[in-house]
Amino acid sequence: MTGHHQNHHNSTTCLSQAESLSLLALSAACVAVLANTFQGDGYPLIASLALGGLAFSATFSMIRWLGPTFMRAGLKGVDMSKHHKKELPECMGAIAAMVYLLAVIIFIPFPFYKDIVAATSGGGNRDVVMHVEHVQEGRFLHRFPHGKLASYLSAVMALQSISLLGIGDDLFDIRWRHKFFIPAFASIPLLVVYFVDFGVTSVVIPTPLQPYLGELFNLGALYYVYMASVAIFSPNSINILAGINGIEVTQSIVIALLLAFNDCLYLLTPYPHPATDSHLFSLYFLLPFLGVSFALLWHNWYPARVFVGDTYCYFAGMVFVVVSILGHFSKTLILLLIPQIFNFVYSVPQLFGLVPCPRHRLPRFNARTGLLEPSVTPWTPERQPKPPVAWALKTLDKVKLLRVTLDEEGRFVETSNFTILNLWLVWRGPLREDRLAMEITGMQIVVGLFGLFVRHRLALILFKQDNLGV
Amino acid sequence: MTGHHQNHHNSTTCLSQAESLSLLALSAACVAVLANTFQGDGYPLIASLALGGLAFSATFSMIRWLGPTFMRAGLKGVDMSKHHKKELPECMGAIAAMVYLLAVIIFIPFPFYKDIVAATSGGGNRDVVMHVEHVQEGRFLHRFPHGKLASYLSAVMALQSISLLGIGDDLFDIRWRHKFFIPAFASIPLLVVYFVDFGVTSVVIPTPLQPYLGELFNLGALYYVYMASVAIFSPNSINILAGINGIEVTQSIVIALLLAFNDCLYLLTPYPHPATDSHLFSLYFLLPFLGVSFALLWHNWYPARVFVGDTYCYFAGMVFVVVSILGHFSKTLILLLIPQIFNFVYSVPQLFGLVPCPRHRLPRFNARTGLLEPSVTPWTPERQPKPPVAWALKTLDKVKLLRVTLDEEGRFVETSNFTILNLWLVWRGPLREDRLAMEITGMQIVVGLFGLFVRHRLALILFKQDNLGV
Repeated sequence: MTGHHQNHHNSTTCLSQAESLSLLALSAACVAVLANTFQGDGYPLIASLALGGLAFSATFSMIRWLGPTFMRAGLKGVDMSKHHKKELPECMGAIAAMVYLLAVIIFIPFPFYKDIVAATSGGGNRDVVMHVEHVQEGRFLHRFPHGKLASYLSAVMALQSISLLGIGDDLFDIRWRHKFFIPAFASIPLLVVYFVDFGVTSVVIPTPLQPYLGELFNLGALYYVYMASVAIFSPNSINILAGINGIEVTQSIVIALLLAFNDCLYLLTPYPHPATDSHLFSLYFLLPFLGVSFALLWHNWYPARVFVGDTYCYFAGMVFVVVSILGHFSKTLILLLIPQIFNFVYSVPQLFGLVPCPRHRLPRFNARTGLLEPSVTPWTPERQPKPPVAWALKTLDKVKLLRVTLDEEGRFVETSNFTILNLWLVWRGPLREDRLAMEITGMQIVVGLFGLFVRHRLALILFKQDNLGV
Repeated sequence: MTGHHQNHHNSTTCLSQAESLSLLALSAACVAVLANTFQGDGYPLIASLALGGLAFSATFSMIRWLGPTFMRAGLKGVDMSKHHKKELPECMGAIAAMVYLLAVIIFIPFPFYKDIVAATSGGGNRDVVMHVEHVQEGRFLHRFPHGKLASYLSAVMALQSISLLGIGDDLFDIRWRHKFFIPAFASIPLLVVYFVDFGVTSVVIPTPLQPYLGELFNLGALYYVYMASVAIFSPNSINILAGINGIEVTQSIVIALLLAFNDCLYLLTPYPHPATDSHLFSLYFLLPFLGVSFALLWHNWYPARVFVGDTYCYFAGMVFVVVSILGHFSKTLILLLIPQIFNFVYSVPQLFGLVPCPRHRLPRFNARTGLLEPSVTPWTPERQPKPPVAWALKTLDKVKLLRVTLDEEGRFVETSNFTILNLWLVWRGPLREDRLAMEITGMQIVVGLFGLFVRHRLALILFKQDNLGV
């Protein structure tokens, strides 16, 4: 290795002095807060925030340190949308996932802290237990909220499963029709524990339909199908809105922030809201997720120095699934996934083969201008769309949902690819990569806030009562 | 690819007709048993056995199908102890681990089945719950043994963690002094849940010491150090007794069978034993483990067609850790690990650098005879051991615990490497690879049975009462 390369190597894999000091200061502050929280009254929310800060520092440093290790193991990719096509470490979302998992596991004693104290001090049955097992002593279990603990553990298990399967996908490049079901496998722990532990399968019926169906309707096994569908959709929908630097992470951060904002609405009600626990639960999972995601974004934002891999997309989607299913607000999650749902529905013609689907549909990098343009599917004079498809494509073009190029004889030359990123470029014209990522992120914020508004204001039309209890 | 290679490819990656039929028959029988078990009274032990059969079939088939995929992803290694040094898929223990995890997760409803029924039918508080949450309905939580569920889930989490970290180790070839602590990280979920959920940190004091220390002694935080030590030792000790075809899997199968045998002793007592639950719990984890391990052994036994990877060794060691810690028989586990403990202690001179340690210490393959011989560390006339080390080496040679070769002037020429496999070859002379594996496995069985005998007969001298209650 020449001296030049050695220097280059150091500059991308070591922390600068300023970075080291900032991360150390942040970590020290977080450790202090954690120690304080555990000794004092135990405010788990503050502990969760502190763990988020620690998770940020750990992810930030480990991404920097482990990049070359990942590349040596073959986990690397080329950034196609740059002048200098450099190889970058791939699958760095796996680091974020590992740090996150460690954080949420270490967090377990915090929300259950008060209960430990209560259970330990009220040891009336000590002798009975001694009699049965001879070595049994100490805390008593009956006052401990095991139901919540099992839910929490099942969420962690689902996230561990999706990490294992996501890493498998990144390693083995599993085919699209197989990988679609990866999140289904990962959601099994969640569904199984829900089944043995909770088992509520009723949904509230919208007011206009209540005369016919009653107030509650028991979906039974269908409720599990519904949960599995959400679990399959959320991770996959984040995975297919990808292809430009930072977009996987920013969309996940926006959704996490909006979910956390929604959770806070329940915590700030003037009276204790019955769903407070569910939304605290959700925050405990979202805060460390935001920590690791910001650290990842730092390195994945334009111009990217690392790629996140499918692992991160699946993982992020699954975080949203576990908090919304265990917190019983999966409909809210669906409202926040509207851009992803649009992207999926819009992609259907290509995903199901009505229109030819190239291997990659990410926007095309124009090396001359340095801007991204919509990528296209070419049509040859011999291979033209069938008449109904041709009619549909022209209609989409007319309503500005596609760009169709015809030759002078009216034959199809090319059509833009069916992804929201390409469509945005059709609307807005060529954009630089970071500009496109920012605009899509802005759109996700606006649509998400509108979704939450719908959730809390217009829901009163369909349901007698909003969960906020207004 | 030529026709010849294509055939070769098929013969090693597809199941033969006989294999397909056998596996299908086994799977069908197991599914029938499972369905029956779930509908009937629910004997979880039979369900666990059936899941073990299914896990065997799944692991067997997937190892065959996914071998080439693993090799394409770079997970491959060369078998050094063969005439034809062929590349084989590496890290196939990851498949065994994944199938195992799915099996123990799907198993969750079985042991908790009776409780589900009981909890569903006795719904006295239904209206109260409705009042609080509006959509809460169905089963009630207070009659459900959540304590056991949380233990079970923490065990699965620890096993998922060790799989994630083991795969990381196989991918990135982590340095010895770092990987030593991998199991410590993986045991965090176990320890954390033990802390919030159970918290028994007392040990029974041996009878001769009871006048001084009392009947029970509360180790407090030291108990967690003890559990972490067992968790670090067991996986690592299995990982370092490796290097010849099949040995990682056979030692794990022997330990699992002996633990299962010990569990059965508690189930067959004429009266219900207080520790029955703990030992049932242990069997639920051991039976599927035996299923996946036998499928792996089929392919890893001499001449190996796949390698198991560090993932399997860590994973197997962690299975023993979770059952013995949650079942409170970690001292029994230590008795069953005596050959591994010997191997570790014997390795210390090389692990800690008193004697030079080559990169690989596996026995040397003699291509002329086709037999394995002890591998050696060479000494040059310039680089001789220091006097105390030289004295120790010569003493070990005298008591037949090492083979030392001196030249005519009394200088060290070579010493056999410090592993139990090399020592066995020093004792028994050159052996074929499968013969060596069989003899070491036989030794493990004899030592293990003796350990169990000590556990149940001689323990009465040290403790007032054996757990078997005799």
